[in-house]
Amino acid sequence: MEGFQEFEPIFNEPRIGWAKNSNPGSGLMDQFLMHIFAPDDNHLKIQVTDYHSNTFEAVKSVMQLDDMRDCIGIGGSWAEFVEYLVASFKAEDVKLVLEKLSDSDGVAYAKLVAQKSKGMPLISISLTKLLDNAARDAMANMSFGLFKAFKRTKNLVLQEKEHSLQLTKVISAEKERSENIQSQLGKRQKLEKMNSSDRLDVSGPPASNGAQNSPDKLAGRDPASTKVTNRVVPAFRRAKVRGALLQDIEDDKDN
Amino acid sequence: MEGFQEFEPIFNEPRIGWAKNSNPGSGLMDQFLMHIFAPDDNHLKIQVTDYHSNTFEAVKSVMQLDDMRDCIGIGGSWAEFVEYLVASFKAEDVKLVLEKLSDSDGVAYAKLVAQKSKGMPLISISLTKLLDNAARDAMANMSFGLFKAFKRTKNLVLQEKEHSLQLTKVISAEKERSENIQSQLGKRQKLEKMNSSDRLDVSGPPASNGAQNSPDKLAGRDPASTKVTNRVVPAFRRAKVRGALLQDIEDDKDN
Repeated sequence: MEGFQEFEPIFNEPRIGWAKNSNPGSGLMDQFLMHIFAPDDNHLKIQVTDYHSNTFEAVKSVMQLDDMRDCIGIGGSWAEFVEYLVASFKAEDVKLVLEKLSDSDGVAYAKLVAQKSKGMPLISISLTKLLDNAARDAMANMSFGLFKAFKRTKNLVLQEKEHSLQLTKVISAEKERSENIQSQLGKRQKLEKMNSSDRLDVSGPPASNGAQNSPDKLAGRDPASTKVTNRVVPAFRRAKVRGALLQDIEDDKDN
Repeated sequence: MEGFQEFEPIFNEPRIGWAKNSNPGSGLMDQFLMHIFAPDDNHLKIQVTDYHSNTFEAVKSVMQLDDMRDCIGIGGSWAEFVEYLVASFKAEDVKLVLEKLSDSDGVAYAKLVAQKSKGMPLISISLTKLLDNAARDAMANMSFGLFKAFKRTKNLVLQEKEHSLQLTKVISAEKERSENIQSQLGKRQKLEKMNSSDRLDVSGPPASNGAQNSPDKLAGRDPASTKVTNRVVPAFRRAKVRGALLQDIEDDKDN
């Protein structure tokens, strides 16, 4: 079992829910922000605040979380469990359940309930209230942590944009390359056409050849289909050509 | 002159500086977060907080900022001025100058000083202290705004990654395309080589003639084929080919 090495802090905005016997009353903020981070390798800290008078916290050790895992009944490795925790806390419908006993009281009790998705095991964590300086420390820590994560993410955007730019350059280079080859091919085709029209002059084979070889037509074509257009080579010569071909391949290897 | 339509909120962490006659003393947080946003089209709000007991604010109308622009002496259009403001507030060394008169006092005075880069005009804005609920509102507003910006930026990263993926696919397609053309070209080159070796065979030197005409070899051969291989095109025929080429090009256009 391992702890929370390199645990990336999680920020989320939980939905507010009210416990059944609760009296929401008025004057409560309707927005909370939560922050989950590892203050050290063996603990996970969960903080939730409305930046007014309601700030809550839970600290869970690796051992406590492992007990929770047993209760909930999540199998697999510790890493898989941490992955499930992270996915649950990052999910869109993390719920902050609040309980307020009378209108004059503040929130008496808070609980964070999360699950990766519907039907999956519920992670439920009771939170204790933070007051005064502890609450302000939690708010500060959350906001500066969020700002750090924001800056990191902005840098990621820049990196990704730079990456896209490089890829765009590669595309240009590849396009240029295939245009070059295409134009070489075009030249060769023209040359062949000349040669074959030349030959036409002499041996007068069927006439459709020239049009078939046009570069336009070849551009989008599968190489197999072009098969160098069957250039009306009589059978006896084809046989000969096959012999020559083997030699050519060997020549290529030598080069 | 226009206002702050579609002003994108700015978040930054100013460096702390102390006024000359100030006594920093102890107990002051050393981190502040600032938030600059347009609560409406005609105002800019600047808020700074350490999430403890020091939260400051300034609200500037378009008119006030335009006056400031005259004082500082920044020419150009209103849009250019807003651009300069934004660049200055986003700069790395935005400074928050604090003044504390005795150790027991809180911060008596705060001022935000920003410039786009060294040597450029200084933007200097005096801030007033916010207390109690107003301070908490500012903190909440800042942090929820920051969370929104963070989420937007994370989505941008996803979009950019998706974009890169698409570009990578385009690269693969382009590579495949040029490999196809390359292989067509390769086939053609081989064929040409074959043809030329073919030609050598037939139009070889007269001395070997007897052997070449051996009944075995002649058996499959059409007398016309010897003519075909006569492919060392004499000048007069090359001219003819040129004529044919022009016609071919026209044919291509027609396709």
